[in-house]
Amino acid sequence: MKLAVYTKAGQVGLADLDRPQIIEADDAIIRIVRTCVCGSDLWRYRSPDIEAGHQNSGHEAIGIVEEIGDTVTTVKPGDFVIAPFTHGCGQCDACRAGFDGTCDSHIGNNWSDGVQAEYMRFEFANWALIKIPGQPSDYTEGMLKSLLTLADVMPTGYHAARVADVKPGDKVVVIGDGAVGQCAVIAAKMRGASQIVLMSRHEDRQKMALESGATAVVAERGEEGIAKVREILGGGADAALECVGTEAAVDQALGVLHNGGRLGFVGVPHYNNRALGSTFAQNITVAGGAASVTTYDKQILLKAVLDGDINPGRVFTSSYKLEDIDQAYRDMDERKTIKSMIVFD
Amino acid sequence: MKLAVYTKAGQVGLADLDRPQIIEADDAIIRIVRTCVCGSDLWRYRSPDIEAGHQNSGHEAIGIVEEIGDTVTTVKPGDFVIAPFTHGCGQCDACRAGFDGTCDSHIGNNWSDGVQAEYMRFEFANWALIKIPGQPSDYTEGMLKSLLTLADVMPTGYHAARVADVKPGDKVVVIGDGAVGQCAVIAAKMRGASQIVLMSRHEDRQKMALESGATAVVAERGEEGIAKVREILGGGADAALECVGTEAAVDQALGVLHNGGRLGFVGVPHYNNRALGSTFAQNITVAGGAASVTTYDKQILLKAVLDGDINPGRVFTSSYKLEDIDQAYRDMDERKTIKSMIVFD
Repeated sequence: MKLAVYTKAGQVGLADLDRPQIIEADDAIIRIVRTCVCGSDLWRYRSPDIEAGHQNSGHEAIGIVEEIGDTVTTVKPGDFVIAPFTHGCGQCDACRAGFDGTCDSHIGNNWSDGVQAEYMRFEFANWALIKIPGQPSDYTEGMLKSLLTLADVMPTGYHAARVADVKPGDKVVVIGDGAVGQCAVIAAKMRGASQIVLMSRHEDRQKMALESGATAVVAERGEEGIAKVREILGGGADAALECVGTEAAVDQALGVLHNGGRLGFVGVPHYNNRALGSTFAQNITVAGGAASVTTYDKQILLKAVLDGDINPGRVFTSSYKLEDIDQAYRDMDERKTIKSMIVFD
Repeated sequence: MKLAVYTKAGQVGLADLDRPQIIEADDAIIRIVRTCVCGSDLWRYRSPDIEAGHQNSGHEAIGIVEEIGDTVTTVKPGDFVIAPFTHGCGQCDACRAGFDGTCDSHIGNNWSDGVQAEYMRFEFANWALIKIPGQPSDYTEGMLKSLLTLADVMPTGYHAARVADVKPGDKVVVIGDGAVGQCAVIAAKMRGASQIVLMSRHEDRQKMALESGATAVVAERGEEGIAKVREILGGGADAALECVGTEAAVDQALGVLHNGGRLGFVGVPHYNNRALGSTFAQNITVAGGAASVTTYDKQILLKAVLDGDINPGRVFTSSYKLEDIDQAYRDMDERKTIKSMIVFD
């Protein structure tokens, strides 16, 4: 079969290989009907480290199941399927929490070779493959294109919106007008965002996004772009969806948010000096800052204390007069008390 | 009146000052009934940079309103109130999103002096103060202690649980056994966590947390502590609440989470080499990683495509045969196409 391989920086060629075979009981061999090039493939394609025959990083496909391993029960030969770029087990904590892209069991990508090829071996097939009703011939070319986006870019745009918790009525900014950014616009609309601003300089991409649900586009970048977004939204955004993978894009996303806003980032991080890279690999949500004392007290905590449902005052294990404040500090510093209270007569 | 001041590193004394006066129309003067020392005050208290008379960082109090500015309508002299350590305006995007701790309008802390004193001037009083029913004499000392926690540590513990989205049935780990950690245990229980593991080495603090809702304690730290937590939970935690403010505590918190887990951190960051410090100041939630293709496709996206509700396939603005894959890459690299699709006959 034919398989695309990187031959040198900025060049792709074809290699002739044997059709892949079932190796593990949870494998499926898929004849590929449509595959595509991902923005993330371009990072690899441009790399000066490429040697002739370098494995291709393609990872998006739809196709027909040709053969299955002994333990595969969810699909059978002849089925039309989406081959996700990830391979969740469906059983671990991460998969059960809806984070099968970073399954606790199956680390990393699992293809024998790239999927810009005539056939692929898909590992951990039983839970991860998604069956499409019917056969490719039942669908228009436009529908086949949309089905192919379900292997990566559409779920990736959706992931940005989901982890940023986009809710009905939210003001959302999308950074990046490529395929994932376009899909993030669609996802924000699906989740009910009332305003969706796309940051984009390209007229054709602006037009596509406006037709998909974007309510405005901003061509400016940096401080100017942030000011323009805030002018359009009448303030900061509730959620920013970063779909590029550069530090400038992350800074842009952080800049358009109001305090307490939410950043969903799915651009594979191509920068090193941030914690974001490490949390990305684990799909971990990181949030924190000063507490909302007034809000929480009014909404829930004062009532819970007065009703005797909670007794947080137990943390005051020592009391002092103001005159003894030096002792109050010292005892706390030396861990003789959890927290020192000052009492006035 | 008497006011606590830092006199040198590790020493607190008292200064005599005039009672503060109303300056702005939204001010309130409060006679303090109970105040206390915060773990975060100890960072300042220990600082070698302290000069004699250095302003104290105390910021937690309950008291009686003595006087109000012209625009204050929510409280009147004689009212018993909680004075939050923050001063939300109640109107901005951040406040309306329940993030009044980082109000978009009122930046930073707003006290003329510390509140380890007989009186305080509380700025932006109208929305931010919380009225307590009755008078201090109506309450037991234990209840006064719990009311005092509502100025900071209890809402702060609650904030960790809220931003980490602790939900019924969640497995939660709390890092830090001080006042905020103890309150985070209470908050995790209020929000329905099924398992709450406190990382603590101190028997009295372990006991307090177990009485408040912790289901287990782990004294070990580092890799050993992470292994112990995972053994107790039968896997990774859904949420980790970091209530210390050191990089080691953040690493501990990240280490106990399963992929897709959530870190709520409220320990004021005392480290520089992480993005966490900058997002903390803005209370921004940061989340991202590989998409959950299988989950999203099965739950929502495949149906939305087949029903024609979304048309993400429009991102494929060019199609190629596998033989032309080099062109497919080049066109995408040169932005002639948003995304290149490969079609098989």
